[in-house]
Amino acid sequence: MSESLMDSCIMELIAVASAPGMVSFATGLPDKKMFDPEGIRKAADDVLRSDVATDALQYGDALGFMPLREAIAERLRREAGFSVEPERVVLTNGSQECFDLLGKLFLDRGDRLAVENPGYLGALQSFSAYGPVYDGVDVSDGGPDLGMLFSSLEKAPKMFYCIPNHQNPTGFSYSDEARKAVADLVSDSETLLVEDDAYGELGHRGRAGKSISSMTENAVLTGSFSKVVTPGLRVGWMALPEWAVPKMSSMLEASCLQAGSFSQRVIHRFMENGDYDGYIADLRKGYFRKKERFLGLLGENMPPGPAWNDPSGGMFVWMSLPEGVDASSLCEAALKRKLVLMPGKPFHVRGGGNTIRLNYATATADETERGMVALGEAAREVLRSSR
Amino acid sequence: MSESLMDSCIMELIAVASAPGMVSFATGLPDKKMFDPEGIRKAADDVLRSDVATDALQYGDALGFMPLREAIAERLRREAGFSVEPERVVLTNGSQECFDLLGKLFLDRGDRLAVENPGYLGALQSFSAYGPVYDGVDVSDGGPDLGMLFSSLEKAPKMFYCIPNHQNPTGFSYSDEARKAVADLVSDSETLLVEDDAYGELGHRGRAGKSISSMTENAVLTGSFSKVVTPGLRVGWMALPEWAVPKMSSMLEASCLQAGSFSQRVIHRFMENGDYDGYIADLRKGYFRKKERFLGLLGENMPPGPAWNDPSGGMFVWMSLPEGVDASSLCEAALKRKLVLMPGKPFHVRGGGNTIRLNYATATADETERGMVALGEAAREVLRSSR
Repeated sequence: MSESLMDSCIMELIAVASAPGMVSFATGLPDKKMFDPEGIRKAADDVLRSDVATDALQYGDALGFMPLREAIAERLRREAGFSVEPERVVLTNGSQECFDLLGKLFLDRGDRLAVENPGYLGALQSFSAYGPVYDGVDVSDGGPDLGMLFSSLEKAPKMFYCIPNHQNPTGFSYSDEARKAVADLVSDSETLLVEDDAYGELGHRGRAGKSISSMTENAVLTGSFSKVVTPGLRVGWMALPEWAVPKMSSMLEASCLQAGSFSQRVIHRFMENGDYDGYIADLRKGYFRKKERFLGLLGENMPPGPAWNDPSGGMFVWMSLPEGVDASSLCEAALKRKLVLMPGKPFHVRGGGNTIRLNYATATADETERGMVALGEAAREVLRSSR
Repeated sequence: MSESLMDSCIMELIAVASAPGMVSFATGLPDKKMFDPEGIRKAADDVLRSDVATDALQYGDALGFMPLREAIAERLRREAGFSVEPERVVLTNGSQECFDLLGKLFLDRGDRLAVENPGYLGALQSFSAYGPVYDGVDVSDGGPDLGMLFSSLEKAPKMFYCIPNHQNPTGFSYSDEARKAVADLVSDSETLLVEDDAYGELGHRGRAGKSISSMTENAVLTGSFSKVVTPGLRVGWMALPEWAVPKMSSMLEASCLQAGSFSQRVIHRFMENGDYDGYIADLRKGYFRKKERFLGLLGENMPPGPAWNDPSGGMFVWMSLPEGVDASSLCEAALKRKLVLMPGKPFHVRGGGNTIRLNYATATADETERGMVALGEAAREVLRSSR
C-alpha cells in the first residue's frame, strides 16, 4: 500500500481533453495520424497466418520474444552507440512498467531517489508506490546541474532517474559533455542510473547523443515503441546490467507473468516488413514540421512576457511565464476558452509554479490554430491582471 | 524490494518443458491447438481496417475499453449470476497483474493474507512481493475447511484469496453450500474476498456454481481470457467494489499507465464476430475429451498406490502418492524418462510433500501417451524403493 501515491492526473487530462470541442496541448499522446495502422495490420496478419501462429498466442518467455530483443539490441548498438547483449534486454508492458518494476526491485520505503527537477511525472508516480524520498537535481537545456548531482550522489540514492533526450516535460537534451560527466559521476557511486529513452528516436536531426548507458556499467536504459510505433500494443523494454536480469525476471513474472508475446511479435514483424529506418526518418520529419508550425503560431499569438524553448526533438515545448505569475491561472483562463493545458508544477520536486508543458504532437493543424488563439487571449488576460 | 519473493519456477518449468523430446504435464499452459488464430486474425483485421483504427493504437482509458468491460459484465450476469456495473470492471495485463495490484493496494509488510492450502502459486508469488504473512486454509473438493476459515478470519487478514472453480493446482470446486458459507463468513468480517475465476468458463458441464462475489459486497472477482481465448494478448480483468475503483485506477496508471487497448479491442471484436457461446461450448467439450483420455491412460499405466481426482473442469488433475512417499523423487524419476512434472509442495503453505499437479491440457495425444508410460515406470521405481 502506498499512502504517498500522488493523485493521478495524466489520465484525467486525457478524459477532459477528449470532451467535444476541446483542444488539448496537455497530454503526452503521440500524433495518431502518424501511426501506420495498415503496416500494423499487415504485421499482425503475417504473424497470425504463419505456421507459428499458435505459438504467438501461447505463453512465452517471461523476458520476451527473443528476435525483438535482438532487434532492439542491434538498433541500440547502431543508433545509440550502446553495445548490449539481447539477453540483457527485457520486454515489458510499456516502459511505465519498467519504472514500477525497478521501484519494486530496488526501493524500500524511505530510500533516496534522485530525480530531475523538473522531471517526468509518470515515472515519479510509479516510484512513489514504493515510498522513496526524492532528491531533485535541477536540469536545464544541456543537462543537469552537475554540482547538485554530485551532492545528491554523495547521499547515496538508490537510483538517479533522467531523460537525456528531448525530456518530458521540457524537451531539454543533455550535451555530450553532460552525458560524459553524468556517466563518470554515476560510475564513482553506488547509485544506479535509470536512463529513460522514450523520445530518443524522435530527434529532428537524429539522436541527440550517445546513450549514457554506453559509458557506465551502472545503468539501466529504458525505452518504448509507444511514441514511435503505437502505445496501444504496450511494448516497452529495459536494458539491464547482467547481474540484475535474474532478479528482474522473477519480479516481472510475479507482477504479470510476462508482457504480451503477441504484441512483441507484431512489433518485430512491423520492423522487419518495411523500411524501418525510413519510417523513423518520416516520423522525425513529421514531428519537426508540427513543431515548426506550433512555434510559428505561438510567436504570432502570444503577448510579450512568456518565454519558451525550441526543442531539438520529442513532443514538448516548455513555457515559462514571468516570475511570480501563477501558471495555474493561465490554465484556468485557457480552459474557459476550451484549451486544456498542463501546468509544469506537478513535474517539479520544488518550484516551477510559473511553468507550462505544451505538447505540439497531439493536436491537429486546425486544433492547433484554435488552441493558439485561445492561449494568446488567456495569456493576455492573465498577464494584464498580474500587473 | 521483496526479500521474501519466492524463487520463480513457473517459467523455468516452461523452459525445461520446451527442450526437444520432453513431454510436460507440468505447466499451466492451455492447449494451443484449441486457440483460434484465424478468428483472432479476423478480429485484429477488423479493428485495424475500421475507421477507429488509429484510436485502437492510441492511449485510451486507464480502466480499459468500455465495450469489453460491458461484455464482461453482461457475461458475468448471465453465466455467473453476478450483477456488476461495467464501471466496476477494470481491465489488466492478464489476471496475474490483478494480484500484483491488489497486493500493492491492500498489503503492508506483515499483514495477514488467508490463502487456500494448497493454492495457486502464481498469485502467491505476486502477493509475496508485499511481504504478507500467509495463513493457510485447508481446501478439499467441495470447498475450504470452514472452521479453519472462521478461525483465520478472526485474525482479520486483509484478504482471502481462493479459486472456487476447478482450482489450480487441484481441479477442486466449491459446492453451492460452501460458496454460501464463504460469502457469509466474509460478509461478517473485515476481510476482502479475492475470488479468482480463471477457470470458471472451463467447466465440462458449464459453470460449477454461482460466483461467491454475487453473494457478498466484500469481494473482488478476477478473470482472464488467457485460458479461453489466448494468453498471448494478456487480457485479464477484475470486478471491484465501487469504493475501490478510483484507488485501483491510480494504482494501475502508476504501474503501467493502462493495459493494452489494442488487445482489448481485438478480444471484444472476437467475442462479437462469431458465436462466442458456441466457441466456449466447443472448448469445454475439447478439454473434457482431453481429460477423459488422460484419466484413462493414467488408470492403465499407474501401479496401485497413488490416487487422483476426476475434476469437473479446468486443466488439472491432482495426484497424491501414498503417505510418506516424496513426490520430488517421482518428479526426478520422471525427468530421467523425459517427462516434466510439477510437485504439489510449492502450492502449499504446509504439507503436500506427497502431491503432484498434472496438467492434462497442454500435451498432445502422442505426448500424453509417451508421458503416461514414463509416469507409470517412474511411479513403479519410486514406490518399489519406498517400501
